[in-house]
Amino acid sequence: MTQPASGQPRVFVPVITPFTADLAVDTRRFVGFCKWLVSQRAGLAVFGTNSEANSLSLAERLELLDALVDGGIDPRVLMPGTGSSALPDAVALTRHAVRRGCGGALVLPPFFYKGVAEDGVYRYYSEIIEKVGSAALQLYLYHIPQVSGVPITLSLIARLREKYPKTVVGIKDSSGDWENTRQVLEQFPGFQVFPASEALLQRALPLGAAGCISATANLQPGTIADYIDNWSRPDAERLNARLSAVRLRMQSTTMIPALKAVVAHHADDQAWLTVRPPLSGIAPSEAQKLVADLAALGFEMPGLGSHVH
Amino acid sequence: MTQPASGQPRVFVPVITPFTADLAVDTRRFVGFCKWLVSQRAGLAVFGTNSEANSLSLAERLELLDALVDGGIDPRVLMPGTGSSALPDAVALTRHAVRRGCGGALVLPPFFYKGVAEDGVYRYYSEIIEKVGSAALQLYLYHIPQVSGVPITLSLIARLREKYPKTVVGIKDSSGDWENTRQVLEQFPGFQVFPASEALLQRALPLGAAGCISATANLQPGTIADYIDNWSRPDAERLNARLSAVRLRMQSTTMIPALKAVVAHHADDQAWLTVRPPLSGIAPSEAQKLVADLAALGFEMPGLGSHVH
Repeated sequence: MTQPASGQPRVFVPVITPFTADLAVDTRRFVGFCKWLVSQRAGLAVFGTNSEANSLSLAERLELLDALVDGGIDPRVLMPGTGSSALPDAVALTRHAVRRGCGGALVLPPFFYKGVAEDGVYRYYSEIIEKVGSAALQLYLYHIPQVSGVPITLSLIARLREKYPKTVVGIKDSSGDWENTRQVLEQFPGFQVFPASEALLQRALPLGAAGCISATANLQPGTIADYIDNWSRPDAERLNARLSAVRLRMQSTTMIPALKAVVAHHADDQAWLTVRPPLSGIAPSEAQKLVADLAALGFEMPGLGSHVH
Repeated sequence: MTQPASGQPRVFVPVITPFTADLAVDTRRFVGFCKWLVSQRAGLAVFGTNSEANSLSLAERLELLDALVDGGIDPRVLMPGTGSSALPDAVALTRHAVRRGCGGALVLPPFFYKGVAEDGVYRYYSEIIEKVGSAALQLYLYHIPQVSGVPITLSLIARLREKYPKTVVGIKDSSGDWENTRQVLEQFPGFQVFPASEALLQRALPLGAAGCISATANLQPGTIADYIDNWSRPDAERLNARLSAVRLRMQSTTMIPALKAVVAHHADDQAWLTVRPPLSGIAPSEAQKLVADLAALGFEMPGLGSHVH
């Protein structure tokens, strides 16, 4: 088994999903990259926003998860995204995650209808929990209102925690709104809060954040893990500055194709460049500039080649 | 076969989808209601926004379409929604619609990512068309930016029409923005434009609109069909006033559960009230008031009982 160096990972990666030239999922490259991430002490929040998960079919998501577990990755480090706009799909994906022994499931709210009543979102989560019907389910809510259009409010968290205290155990807060993250941390002691950017760790860890689930964890999982382990030490500032420099450079471009361009370069494998519609790739010149700028920051992906080839 | 009285329908219904008490799709009620709609000279834009289509799984959508055609509905009056945030699902649904002989397919853009480049949306549609690979495909674009987050721009229509003039044949414009509808009508002669409300017919039909695809066509398909056939006659104003009164009353509530409440009443069948999360039903008192208000307007659903029982 490919396992993290020690204990439960605290940085989870919304793993980018490779595609073949004809836009099929590329299972072999996916498993190889996931093994590298785990070797860097990361957990795998596969099928997240940065994974193009909602561009994948139900069958593709089920099969890719099987490939990871069957490929030897310890399912306890897996926190697959299992939400869907279609309740039956969310149930099927969450049930599958539990059956395969995943440490958690990160569940988007249904994201087609906008302005829905909170009670409808509550019923979506409660239907999933009741239909999966397993004490092993560890469900993480996914708050990304700027994309989903459906917020996970404080009152919704309170209601779900009240009814399912042993199942609804955490949240990924991708709002980028520190005030919201702070309130969740303060109002729900013991609830596992993962900001969606390592930029918030400096403020969130002292308040008890569980870790982070971050796009750029695809690139620098080990450095983020180091920072989480050492944030209270005097030299943590140096680590944080390294994280920030890479993250800020990435944020100045289009995240998903840019992540793929960086991995394509460091894996020496152009197949990684492919994205599925509706996304578009970045221009080769933009990718070259990005890679050069990251190199100037001392960025590298140690050991990647030996896992993906 | 259940067929429209004559010719190609010009009013299409985004048919509401009935569910059983445990939230499964209720195929029998669905087919019965669809047969009533067709008897009223309506076409069936099943699996639209008002159908809770994105709350259905791929398998459910495939099976419900089969049930309609196998149940004797002329597939030429069917324009199922076949879009999805996942390209493989959109391909599978569109291919299935063509195989079953549907008159058209109404294709939402992928609706998870926001702010995507137009080229990515173009590639989504071109991938569907190329992968389905059938001259029989009649594809209608679906412009509903306030929900999908992804507009169908005039330049995207132009590009798709240029490349696939015999396939990309029309659009449903649910923006509610008359200026947009007018521009599409004027810039693309021969393109079949369906506003999403009968309220726009008075202005759109003189400019050559094909008809409409409207939520309230679930309730008053025959009256809308009458209006489309007679809009240029002196007494059309009277018909339009009837349509407007019902529509305005419906728009003052929450559309999908309200449509279901009205059908539940007129079919004398409370099973119609069920909605799938994330939607919520309307309060019984609100439903009662709605039904009474519509009755005061002289609203009825002639012959519904004989089709749904």
